[in-house]
Amino acid sequence: MEQLRALPFEDLGFARIDHHRTLRQGAPEVVFCQGKTPEQTAAIFETLGQRNPYVLGTRATSQHYEAVAAVLPAAEWHEQARIVRVLRTPVNTDRSRYIAVLTAGTSDIPVAEEAAITAETLGSRVERAYDVGVAGLHRLLERKEMIFGAQALVVVAGMEGALPSVVGGLVRRPVIAVPTSVGYGASFDGLAALLAMLNCCASGVVVVNIDNGFGAGYFAHMISNGEQL
Amino acid sequence: MEQLRALPFEDLGFARIDHHRTLRQGAPEVVFCQGKTPEQTAAIFETLGQRNPYVLGTRATSQHYEAVAAVLPAAEWHEQARIVRVLRTPVNTDRSRYIAVLTAGTSDIPVAEEAAITAETLGSRVERAYDVGVAGLHRLLERKEMIFGAQALVVVAGMEGALPSVVGGLVRRPVIAVPTSVGYGASFDGLAALLAMLNCCASGVVVVNIDNGFGAGYFAHMISNGEQL
Amino acid sequence: MEQLRALPFEDLGFARIDHHRTLRQGAPEVVFCQGKTPEQTAAIFETLGQRNPYVLGTRATSQHYEAVAAVLPAAEWHEQARIVRVLRTPVNTDRSRYIAVLTAGTSDIPVAEEAAITAETLGSRVERAYDVGVAGLHRLLERKEMIFGAQALVVVAGMEGALPSVVGGLVRRPVIAVPTSVGYGASFDGLAALLAMLNCCASGVVVVNIDNGFGAGYFAHMISNGEQL
Amino acid sequence: MEQLRALPFEDLGFARIDHHRTLRQGAPEVVFCQGKTPEQTAAIFETLGQRNPYVLGTRATSQHYEAVAAVLPAAEWHEQARIVRVLRTPVNTDRSRYIAVLTAGTSDIPVAEEAAITAETLGSRVERAYDVGVAGLHRLLERKEMIFGAQALVVVAGMEGALPSVVGGLVRRPVIAVPTSVGYGASFDGLAALLAMLNCCASGVVVVNIDNGFGAGYFAHMISNGEQL
Amino acid sequence: MEQLRALPFEDLGFARIDHHRTLRQGAPEVVFCQGKTPEQTAAIFETLGQRNPYVLGTRATSQHYEAVAAVLPAAEWHEQARIVRVLRTPVNTDRSRYIAVLTAGTSDIPVAEEAAITAETLGSRVERAYDVGVAGLHRLLERKEMIFGAQALVVVAGMEGALPSVVGGLVRRPVIAVPTSVGYGASFDGLAALLAMLNCCASGVVVVNIDNGFGAGYFAHMISNGEQL
Amino acid sequence: MEQLRALPFEDLGFARIDHHRTLRQGAPEVVFCQGKTPEQTAAIFETLGQRNPYVLGTRATSQHYEAVAAVLPAAEWHEQARIVRVLRTPVNTDRSRYIAVLTAGTSDIPVAEEAAITAETLGSRVERAYDVGVAGLHRLLERKEMIFGAQALVVVAGMEGALPSVVGGLVRRPVIAVPTSVGYGASFDGLAALLAMLNCCASGVVVVNIDNGFGAGYFAHMISNGEQL
Amino acid sequence: MEQLRALPFEDLGFARIDHHRTLRQGAPEVVFCQGKTPEQTAAIFETLGQRNPYVLGTRATSQHYEAVAAVLPAAEWHEQARIVRVLRTPVNTDRSRYIAVLTAGTSDIPVAEEAAITAETLGSRVERAYDVGVAGLHRLLERKEMIFGAQALVVVAGMEGALPSVVGGLVRRPVIAVPTSVGYGASFDGLAALLAMLNCCASGVVVVNIDNGFGAGYFAHMISNGEQL
Amino acid sequence: MEQLRALPFEDLGFARIDHHRTLRQGAPEVVFCQGKTPEQTAAIFETLGQRNPYVLGTRATSQHYEAVAAVLPAAEWHEQARIVRVLRTPVNTDRSRYIAVLTAGTSDIPVAEEAAITAETLGSRVERAYDVGVAGLHRLLERKEMIFGAQALVVVAGMEGALPSVVGGLVRRPVIAVPTSVGYGASFDGLAALLAMLNCCASGVVVVNIDNGFGAGYFAHMISNGEQL
Repeated sequence: MEQLRALPFEDLGFARIDHHRTLRQGAPEVVFCQGKTPEQTAAIFETLGQRNPYVLGTRATSQHYEAVAAVLPAAEWHEQARIVRVLRTPVNTDRSRYIAVLTAGTSDIPVAEEAAITAETLGSRVERAYDVGVAGLHRLLERKEMIFGAQALVVVAGMEGALPSVVGGLVRRPVIAVPTSVGYGASFDGLAALLAMLNCCASGVVVVNIDNGFGAGYFAHMISNGEQL
Repeated sequence: MEQLRALPFEDLGFARIDHHRTLRQGAPEVVFCQGKTPEQTAAIFETLGQRNPYVLGTRATSQHYEAVAAVLPAAEWHEQARIVRVLRTPVNTDRSRYIAVLTAGTSDIPVAEEAAITAETLGSRVERAYDVGVAGLHRLLERKEMIFGAQALVVVAGMEGALPSVVGGLVRRPVIAVPTSVGYGASFDGLAALLAMLNCCASGVVVVNIDNGFGAGYFAHMISNGEQL
Repeated sequence: MEQLRALPFEDLGFARIDHHRTLRQGAPEVVFCQGKTPEQTAAIFETLGQRNPYVLGTRATSQHYEAVAAVLPAAEWHEQARIVRVLRTPVNTDRSRYIAVLTAGTSDIPVAEEAAITAETLGSRVERAYDVGVAGLHRLLERKEMIFGAQALVVVAGMEGALPSVVGGLVRRPVIAVPTSVGYGASFDGLAALLAMLNCCASGVVVVNIDNGFGAGYFAHMISNGEQL
Repeated sequence: MEQLRALPFEDLGFARIDHHRTLRQGAPEVVFCQGKTPEQTAAIFETLGQRNPYVLGTRATSQHYEAVAAVLPAAEWHEQARIVRVLRTPVNTDRSRYIAVLTAGTSDIPVAEEAAITAETLGSRVERAYDVGVAGLHRLLERKEMIFGAQALVVVAGMEGALPSVVGGLVRRPVIAVPTSVGYGASFDGLAALLAMLNCCASGVVVVNIDNGFGAGYFAHMISNGEQL
Repeated sequence: MEQLRALPFEDLGFARIDHHRTLRQGAPEVVFCQGKTPEQTAAIFETLGQRNPYVLGTRATSQHYEAVAAVLPAAEWHEQARIVRVLRTPVNTDRSRYIAVLTAGTSDIPVAEEAAITAETLGSRVERAYDVGVAGLHRLLERKEMIFGAQALVVVAGMEGALPSVVGGLVRRPVIAVPTSVGYGASFDGLAALLAMLNCCASGVVVVNIDNGFGAGYFAHMISNGEQL
Repeated sequence: MEQLRALPFEDLGFARIDHHRTLRQGAPEVVFCQGKTPEQTAAIFETLGQRNPYVLGTRATSQHYEAVAAVLPAAEWHEQARIVRVLRTPVNTDRSRYIAVLTAGTSDIPVAEEAAITAETLGSRVERAYDVGVAGLHRLLERKEMIFGAQALVVVAGMEGALPSVVGGLVRRPVIAVPTSVGYGASFDGLAALLAMLNCCASGVVVVNIDNGFGAGYFAHMISNGEQL
Repeated sequence: MEQLRALPFEDLGFARIDHHRTLRQGAPEVVFCQGKTPEQTAAIFETLGQRNPYVLGTRATSQHYEAVAAVLPAAEWHEQARIVRVLRTPVNTDRSRYIAVLTAGTSDIPVAEEAAITAETLGSRVERAYDVGVAGLHRLLERKEMIFGAQALVVVAGMEGALPSVVGGLVRRPVIAVPTSVGYGASFDGLAALLAMLNCCASGVVVVNIDNGFGAGYFAHMISNGEQL
Repeated sequence: MEQLRALPFEDLGFARIDHHRTLRQGAPEVVFCQGKTPEQTAAIFETLGQRNPYVLGTRATSQHYEAVAAVLPAAEWHEQARIVRVLRTPVNTDRSRYIAVLTAGTSDIPVAEEAAITAETLGSRVERAYDVGVAGLHRLLERKEMIFGAQALVVVAGMEGALPSVVGGLVRRPVIAVPTSVGYGASFDGLAALLAMLNCCASGVVVVNIDNGFGAGYFAHMISNGEQL
């Protein structure tokens, strides 16, 4: 731990920027914008942007984007994914490998896009198959070839959260299940989908927090890229 | 209500036998044996047996069966379904219609058998397809013809409770979903499956209490038999 | 499943329209408007409207209705039921059979109307009895003849959710219980009513999700129409 | 509070006997036997018995009874109610007033008996109506005269806990609702009945803890006896 | 029940007015305004006002009040209690008996006032002691004489809900405990106080729903007035 | 208790001011502003300000501050901590002892500031270390000397709430853990952090309510100041 | 951290004994016996006993004690506290300071004794006041002098968990509240008491896990001993 | 799907053996022994053993083992991991890559061993570091080299479940977090640890069901072996 303490990080008063993280974990710190002011967000982006090939901000509003864009004009705004991104260096993507991102319904798409944009920013190729829930199996099977060819799969579903179980039983690659808060009544803001996914009867399925598209995209990239991470 | 009060029922001290029920609801009272002594159970069976074509006891142990058999030698013991049954008159079953009873796993079979024996006792034909959970879709599709031909379906599943969603999306007939307490950890004794089924994205799916095979079998018979009930 | 994949569906980018569904399940896809923009809703209505006798949109706001009406002037707005409907072909309703829709209180009426309009759109006749909760039994018994004559019953209640138990004990036809989020404090947004209905001591009662009027109306129509669905 | 401190109580080491309670609250301390050894129970009975017209022990096993009977031969054992009682002085009961104790099912009887024996010990007359749950309304209405004539009602129910709502809507006297842990699955050990009763739509209904027959019987006696308490 | 069905009630379309209730239960129906439009509320008040000595509306906003006052100028608006009241006939209050209404904190006062105004409307005298929570016992003991003299007590508390336990241990008259949603974090909108009150170690304490001041005031009046109700 | 009743307190109608508290507990009553109007808050401040060296109001908005400042111009507004404070007499702080206040993330700072300002107002010295969560241990170890030297530690964390476990394993002084509602999905408004902290495997860690910075700061001051309180 | 890694600890295969802990935290590791075999427990005691003035094992059965006593004959068995203790060196206790340990009921005593024996083993003097719950305030006030003189208080209560609120409002020293699993029904194994204590309206009260007597005793000793720890 | 239906599986009556699974998913079906009789388990082992290089049974008792060993003498019994295994063909393990399996405490070891033996059976090398919880960070850092070198990490913890957050912040490889039911009180059978892990603030951490060592070991092997699976 001695060497850890000697490493550079910057104290912005309200946040301690961890420049060491790229070295230690292979990817720079990601900015969780929710609960931060646009000004704080812009300041963190500016600091991180000086040393990293990209900066990623999740749970961002257009206000966050505008504040960042004012200091870093290269900033992009992915509205559906609620992501602000600054990409300074082109990412080398291995096009022969890809992550499949699936959703059960259309309302799950924002969470899926958070996963997809995250993985793409980190350097992964992503293939999408949206609105392929289990109540219409033929929609899922239509995309069978794409699904079977993926290195890793992110499966996003609200309500009963059944899609990861079906997909997990079809493929031989790791599935990251993402419960969403889509639903009403006894979905209890995603609890139903979360519990269902934790009890998944298929092997090879793991779970992240409700609506945590970022975490799933990050993890899928880790797996898909293997040693390269 | 005036006429209701005039109708016969018998007071055994610990229970009030409702002889009027067959007239009113088309089926005699069913005995929930759990929490009753073998002696109480036998006494209720004896009373009900005098006026009804059959008597059905659910959640029964072998002790309950033995006590019933001592007074009603025709009693049958369905161990897996935990049902004691006395069948005095042959039931006229319409063989052209049937209820499909499905389970996701082998551990769900006792609940499914409770549903199946109940429906058969009431006069329905039942077809079974067990261990056809969503993690191995081909096992389910193997039974496609049987499933598509059913008048009503009882779909029994623990853990993530996903099977009713898949079945509900395939068939055009009513599905009664039965969550079971099969599972561990975050299944919370069937809560995960229950919530999943209540949030089922397929139309035409309704839910009964955890492990309530009897309720599902009874309801499926109501639907399948239509006016005959 | 091979033939399923060959069947037509349309990809609108944000949604995959399942034209096969009418063939497979006897009713066209229903649009869950909540979480969709008015524009998306209108586009889906337009697509579905070209091939189906009717299109039904639930959980709709007046904005959804206006967007749909702009492209399909025949659109109707059922405000209380929060339903947008386009009915292109008159539905042949068998007037001798009907579904009874009951509510415990006045606040449960929107959910009941969602059930009623859904069943009527699908072709069922519906009889209503609202504000007949168990704390005033005579209000319920006043409607006894109507209740006893129904092919299926949808019973909607919030708070303690006791009405399905009482109704289920009176009738010999299937009861679909709908818990609502009506109440406060320990109703926990409908949880109390949901649990009560799942524990219903009467036989012949099944449950759908909290506030799921659509699901109950759809299921009741399935039962009431029997083979005709 | 000064005078309170001067009042007698005895320290048995493991318990502080509150002899002042009869004066302060009109009834001597009641012994909750669960979690106490038979020996501790007997010692407390002996101490309380010296100064009070009666001693009541709830949640008692036969071991508790035997230990008490060894020191106080007048001890009675109410097995179903799980009550040990020593009644030294005949209680003057006003026979013109009574408490009605009702249960929904037969499995609720032990809790109801705890309430009934408690109220009787305190000096109330009790009328019982067991197994009169809402799924068979005629069983309840059969006892209408008795129910309407009671000064207070204790209504005991497990599962969906609907009986207090129906009774509360019929009578003009106070109803004490007692949820029981009778049920399975989504009854969650009485939670379903508890929540239902708390959400009771009838006025004049209050609730005690799950299985708390003693508390209900005690409270009903308080009401029924009015100033005499 | 026959006679019940012959009794008058009026159907306003959205509500069924129960004129029989005063006869059956000794008090006219109370209007729960929440979820009703001002117009609906006014219509119900008008109908009830024609036959009853008073009309009480709870959970009312100033909009409800204004609509009622437009048709019934005698309407009063109790802002803190959120009650609209029309009092046509002076109530004969027995001034020698009273109900004590206590709160633990100042934030609990609106719920307490709902209880107090309800009881006063029904004809009870009410004495108030607010902000007398257990963390400052001397504030409670200051009011000892008033508390000991009450026929019945309504004890209102949020947060840890401890006040009913302390009061229940001091007095010999019935205590109705009202949990409130006052608090934050692990109060879970009143759940903490509700559970505490249900587990009250003092005898003679019963519980109503979270924030249900009306129910507590109604019940306290029932007890306090005895046969007169 | 006799002397307690004789002690002065003032009744403002909506609140009973406890002037005795400083004597009894060593610190004057603190004003919980949430749920109080600005006017009520100002009145309480004015009353308390006459007899106490300082007055502290928590969960205050700028409206509360403005109302207080209108009557007590010395009022200070700590926006992040949501605290209004009037400090009449300089506090004698022992500079050789201090409380360490730590947060896991930047979003936890408002709760931490509530703790810090509270402790400082009471007379403690506070050292802060913010954004030192367990996912970047080196940020925590960077502050090791400060952390080891504290008399007591307040450790504030949302999400998984792991920081108190790590800190508790490092130091030999008491740790007060404060869960915050920071997080989303399965954080369930701070429940996850609360449960984690209650299950802390390190000795010497206690817990307060979710977001209860005041309680932690007050308790830490009690410990840090020892007999001086 | 470098020096930490160089410090001695021993690997017993199933456990890593932390000899460094005494230096780092002022007290040796405590053995949580539950889930360990008697043999494992004895081996850990033997290893710890060689280097520490005492060894403490909590949640121990008599089997654990016997195994420890076989290798360390000085072992003591505190049955009620479920503690095995080996005390090699007399502890220097400052007799002028003490910790008060209170319980609400007799069933809470085992948890209280775990706290008391723990604190005594660490070197604190402990005064006990058991069965002084809030339903009989005079029992608590009887012990006022002892309670007011304590350096720190451990307050143990199950059921509604109200005692810490009352005690916290009386004293000016820190209160550690310990919820217990004593109770039934809606106590939900201590959840009711836990929530109540977390919502305690008195300042100066903190909470530990349900039944965690050890944690409370350890923390109270930390506070009571101040710098000496 | 057509070809899937043509593939061989065997129906044992109580279970449908999926011989196709090895082809489809790269690993044969695993037997979940809990809830199966020893005889059923042995029959499934025999059937699977004829076509697969190994058979793995989890949650097995010694009875399960004995029944399997009677028909397959090569069966091994891993008591701590509760695994029965038959290994017919030596597994080719790439010794340069390994999975790290960590536990926070000694009581977590059975779950960790289930993960470890599973991964080893599938062909992975496993390194273990047990009892390295966050309350003694030096124990974790002692194993830093091993931890940093792993291809994937399985981190097992009960109680507050904090270890995955700390480990996830240190390493750059995927972490599979396994909550265990180790703990008491507010651990609620592993719920506390589960929620903590789902809210993990470190990137690169995913979660499986409570006590699901098998799922974690299987998933870690999938990742570690990459294309070879």
